[in-house]
Amino acid sequence: MKSPEEIIVPGFRAAGTACGIKRSGKPDLAVVVSDLPCVSAVVLTRNKVAAAPVAWARSLRDRSGLRGVLVNSGNANACTGAAGAAAVRETSRAACAALGLPGNALLVGSTGVIGVPLPVGKIVAALPGLARRLSPEGIVEAGEAIRTTDAFPKRGVRRLRAGGRTVTLGGIAKGAGMIAPNMGTMLAYIFTDAALAPADARRALREGTDASFNRIVVDGDTSTNDTAALFANGACGLPALKGSDLAAFREALRSLLLDLALMIVRDGEGATRVVRIAVTGARNDAQAEKAVRAVATSPLVKTAVHGADLNWGRVIAVLGRAGIDVDPSRIEMRFAGELLLRRGMRPDPAAERRAAPRIRRDAYGIDADLGLGKGSAHAYFSDLSVEYVKLNSGYRS
Amino acid sequence: MKSPEEIIVPGFRAAGTACGIKRSGKPDLAVVVSDLPCVSAVVLTRNKVAAAPVAWARSLRDRSGLRGVLVNSGNANACTGAAGAAAVRETSRAACAALGLPGNALLVGSTGVIGVPLPVGKIVAALPGLARRLSPEGIVEAGEAIRTTDAFPKRGVRRLRAGGRTVTLGGIAKGAGMIAPNMGTMLAYIFTDAALAPADARRALREGTDASFNRIVVDGDTSTNDTAALFANGACGLPALKGSDLAAFREALRSLLLDLALMIVRDGEGATRVVRIAVTGARNDAQAEKAVRAVATSPLVKTAVHGADLNWGRVIAVLGRAGIDVDPSRIEMRFAGELLLRRGMRPDPAAERRAAPRIRRDAYGIDADLGLGKGSAHAYFSDLSVEYVKLNSGYRS
Repeated sequence: MKSPEEIIVPGFRAAGTACGIKRSGKPDLAVVVSDLPCVSAVVLTRNKVAAAPVAWARSLRDRSGLRGVLVNSGNANACTGAAGAAAVRETSRAACAALGLPGNALLVGSTGVIGVPLPVGKIVAALPGLARRLSPEGIVEAGEAIRTTDAFPKRGVRRLRAGGRTVTLGGIAKGAGMIAPNMGTMLAYIFTDAALAPADARRALREGTDASFNRIVVDGDTSTNDTAALFANGACGLPALKGSDLAAFREALRSLLLDLALMIVRDGEGATRVVRIAVTGARNDAQAEKAVRAVATSPLVKTAVHGADLNWGRVIAVLGRAGIDVDPSRIEMRFAGELLLRRGMRPDPAAERRAAPRIRRDAYGIDADLGLGKGSAHAYFSDLSVEYVKLNSGYRS
Repeated sequence: MKSPEEIIVPGFRAAGTACGIKRSGKPDLAVVVSDLPCVSAVVLTRNKVAAAPVAWARSLRDRSGLRGVLVNSGNANACTGAAGAAAVRETSRAACAALGLPGNALLVGSTGVIGVPLPVGKIVAALPGLARRLSPEGIVEAGEAIRTTDAFPKRGVRRLRAGGRTVTLGGIAKGAGMIAPNMGTMLAYIFTDAALAPADARRALREGTDASFNRIVVDGDTSTNDTAALFANGACGLPALKGSDLAAFREALRSLLLDLALMIVRDGEGATRVVRIAVTGARNDAQAEKAVRAVATSPLVKTAVHGADLNWGRVIAVLGRAGIDVDPSRIEMRFAGELLLRRGMRPDPAAERRAAPRIRRDAYGIDADLGLGKGSAHAYFSDLSVEYVKLNSGYRS
């Protein structure tokens, strides 16, 4: 899960800069754009209170021909009313003009504080300079400019062979809070020089998102701004991928998205550990999903994980209140592979002693088998630390 | 919400002692018993993983003739299998024998660590001494002996006039974590010298619990042991209460239960503030309830409350992901009475300035009007502090 130092995807250029939205003076404006027409796919937050750029993206009749992204950090442009919607239109128009693109060619994203008017003037003033600095190496710099509370940048690369050529996927993402399953996600942008049919692009992004960003939980809250998008410009020279090439591409995309998602959960605000909770033997998948989500968001479980406390009692109590079918006498539970609970009872103190040092590691698994059916689900979640509280109780004040 | 120094309910005697379950040597065993037959009512946790004493209480064919309670703290007797069930039967039998009562005359309660065998011998050995120390003043002492992580004891008294006599209600409760709506509750025991018909006792306890313990949220987790019970022995000399006397009794019970519930939320682990979240204008009550619960359990909202951060943005983001009908342009929100959000936008920075000092108080309200219908709900929740994390990450280890 180490971030590559360089990301170059043929046919894409990018740049990031500090336009003055963040008082800290850190980079807060990014552009990534394809030199060629693209096939694009976009997944947006399901939060009903959508930020202005999300509402704007939802309103686009067609999201399959976007050429890239314009993203600011430091301001979410959410709960900003008609002025916020106008700000999206104005910055989008100015960016397209600066890049010599037709109107509405870019996906717009914002992330940061809610309820503060977007400083349109600062963005518009910075765009010509940003356009001049675009370069193939700029994707890393763009990734830096979309960070908010992220402790580290999230980016990744995948390469695959198809039709005798190399296909590249490069991705940047941001996010460290307001993370939970069942949303578009935080901001994540994937750029590839493959050619894709629009329906294949949509399906690949949707299935990849479901297996990655929708499987991570930091605090159970979802954001008004979450967006994942894929841009495919075909610069590798192959026709639209099909068959086994398409399958290989989808696998590479899934793998890249999961890497980015795990970086986000590892960077969960104040996180010191990542746990994979897997529930099997549920009555059905929906019940397993409910159980997984209840465990992954329980403050009592998350504090126990933080304290390296082998507290299966809290996990079983959560399963009991998760609103699913549970028969305590059938539950089996493993921490870090050690069977701690069999038929709802503690079987072996020696297993606890073996598990104890393993749950001090920075990643491990909790596996609960409900013993009732074939339903299963899993998620990755971070612990709840003193640092989380400090970060979030002082974030705005 | 000040606890009375003394609680005497005619016809009840009680005592508490340290029998050695808690390593700290603090009181951990309590008995409260009526000298007369009682009409009783019991509300038990809805958690499907029930502790042994809860499973035992559920298995009783009739819970309307119990004479009092035997409660230990320091051990939940949960996830203890057949041995746990046997421990309930054995301690119950020994307690009834020591008190000269028929078998199964007492409700049994346990609270503390999950998954550790209950030390039956220590409890049984302490019972004769506990029986000798029973006194009318002992209810306060019994309340002390049921504490676990409680920072202060929870108890209360109500008196009302009926038929020319004084009717007394005395209550003890414990709980400071694993608190959420939709459960029996933590442990709460109410004793009264009124006479009640069994159906009236059940209804009064159920409605009082719904309006109190089911309206508080500390961390969204419910326990395997939550129990509320009412014991009415008729020692005041009146026949079973009816009509306006019964209505007055129910009102007194509601008021007493709400006091105890608010003491629990104020003593929420690490809590420094209590907020009343009220949602009105929802499509229906069920949607309002969902919204209230989502806000009251959101770590981002709870940390903002802790930091005295006027962060209505986090509240509106939670409303958007709560799975209910929301139209952002119709939402109005008040913090401490000040209108901060009108039609989904921030209307007036001056209102924020007025609200800012008020949300530093130890209790205030957040009112959200969704503007869609007549559904409403409310709950009381505590903030999420550094102290909460410290308490819960170190509780067992």
